[in-house]
Amino acid sequence: MAADKVILLDFYPSMFGMRVRVALAVKGVEYEYREEDLSNKSQLLVQSNPVHKKIPVLIHNGKPVCESLIIVEYIDEVWNHNSPLLPSDPYQRAQARFWADFIDKKMYEVGKKVWTTKGEEQEAGKKEFVGILRQLEAELGDKPFFGGESFGFVDVALITFSTWFHTYETLGNFSIEEHCPKLIEWVQRCMEIGDVAKALVEPNKIHEFALALKTKFAAN
Amino acid sequence: MAADKVILLDFYPSMFGMRVRVALAVKGVEYEYREEDLSNKSQLLVQSNPVHKKIPVLIHNGKPVCESLIIVEYIDEVWNHNSPLLPSDPYQRAQARFWADFIDKKMYEVGKKVWTTKGEEQEAGKKEFVGILRQLEAELGDKPFFGGESFGFVDVALITFSTWFHTYETLGNFSIEEHCPKLIEWVQRCMEIGDVAKALVEPNKIHEFALALKTKFAAN
Repeated sequence: MAADKVILLDFYPSMFGMRVRVALAVKGVEYEYREEDLSNKSQLLVQSNPVHKKIPVLIHNGKPVCESLIIVEYIDEVWNHNSPLLPSDPYQRAQARFWADFIDKKMYEVGKKVWTTKGEEQEAGKKEFVGILRQLEAELGDKPFFGGESFGFVDVALITFSTWFHTYETLGNFSIEEHCPKLIEWVQRCMEIGDVAKALVEPNKIHEFALALKTKFAAN
Repeated sequence: MAADKVILLDFYPSMFGMRVRVALAVKGVEYEYREEDLSNKSQLLVQSNPVHKKIPVLIHNGKPVCESLIIVEYIDEVWNHNSPLLPSDPYQRAQARFWADFIDKKMYEVGKKVWTTKGEEQEAGKKEFVGILRQLEAELGDKPFFGGESFGFVDVALITFSTWFHTYETLGNFSIEEHCPKLIEWVQRCMEIGDVAKALVEPNKIHEFALALKTKFAAN
């Protein structure tokens, strides 16, 4: 794989982009990281993802792959010599895809309600958010990881949202640990994996980014 | 596979449910079809899909699989002896997943605008809908199927929407063929595959269903 040229078009606070960074790190794939300015997207981004024009895009030997979960699955299939992310059993694979899809359908939108709204809307958002986390906690059960004994596809899909937990908690004025202690233990377990921890952005940097974005919204 | 017990919980006009029927038909899998009353869902549906409580659900030897594209991929992995739906090359697999996901994100919601709204909203919906179909037509290009020489994953994902084309056209007062003649040729090619044609609901039945639903909405 020495001749592989891998480029990632990304934006540092994105939980979707971070999934790709985590997957590449876990697999030990070297790549060139290119930060995108989303208010002035590069020609390469627009050409590589003409349909959605969104990050992340993985460009592998000149061929672009788009949509974070599809990229993670692609990485798992191409670099299949170590750290399998999806299980080999078809039923377990379907279950992993189901929960990753659930995270995709729920977490971002509901999380946004928690940190960008106020009053009753925010309270409703927090309730819904905690409900989603509880469903995920129930799915985790007593396993160390969503993937069972090892860090897998659903773990990749969800762990990047943990970098936003501090922001949700601070701007939403609540404690996730109080509602979902086992999920926070799972986050801590994931952070003990060096490759995972290194690929994730510091929660304080996410908080700074979120505050700057709120200020910008308020000024408009 | 003689001992396999396969049950499908479904609702006949659903383009998502029909995907599973098409995939099972193409693979030659025998199954028990159970029609759901969505206003009074069965205990089995609620227990089998407690997160979304939606059809389709495939129950294979007592184990439920949910979400149509995930079910189709599961069927492709379990009954892998004939008619492969996803290509074997990782890059082509990622491309197929991308387009199936695009169809999921766009077609249902925008199609709904076409047949349930009026006036300017409907005109905007039609324009958006034709734009989506044109993107799909461009992706099809000169290939006989989205899967290349044979009917594949993206073909399964999209063909079930063709049963609604007559409804979109009649209630939206426009012609899809006029805008996307190559896509209509693709529909005709798919309909020449006996297993596919037999698994799809007659466009007239869909139209009757849509009219009944419109009447019900108007009465409320």
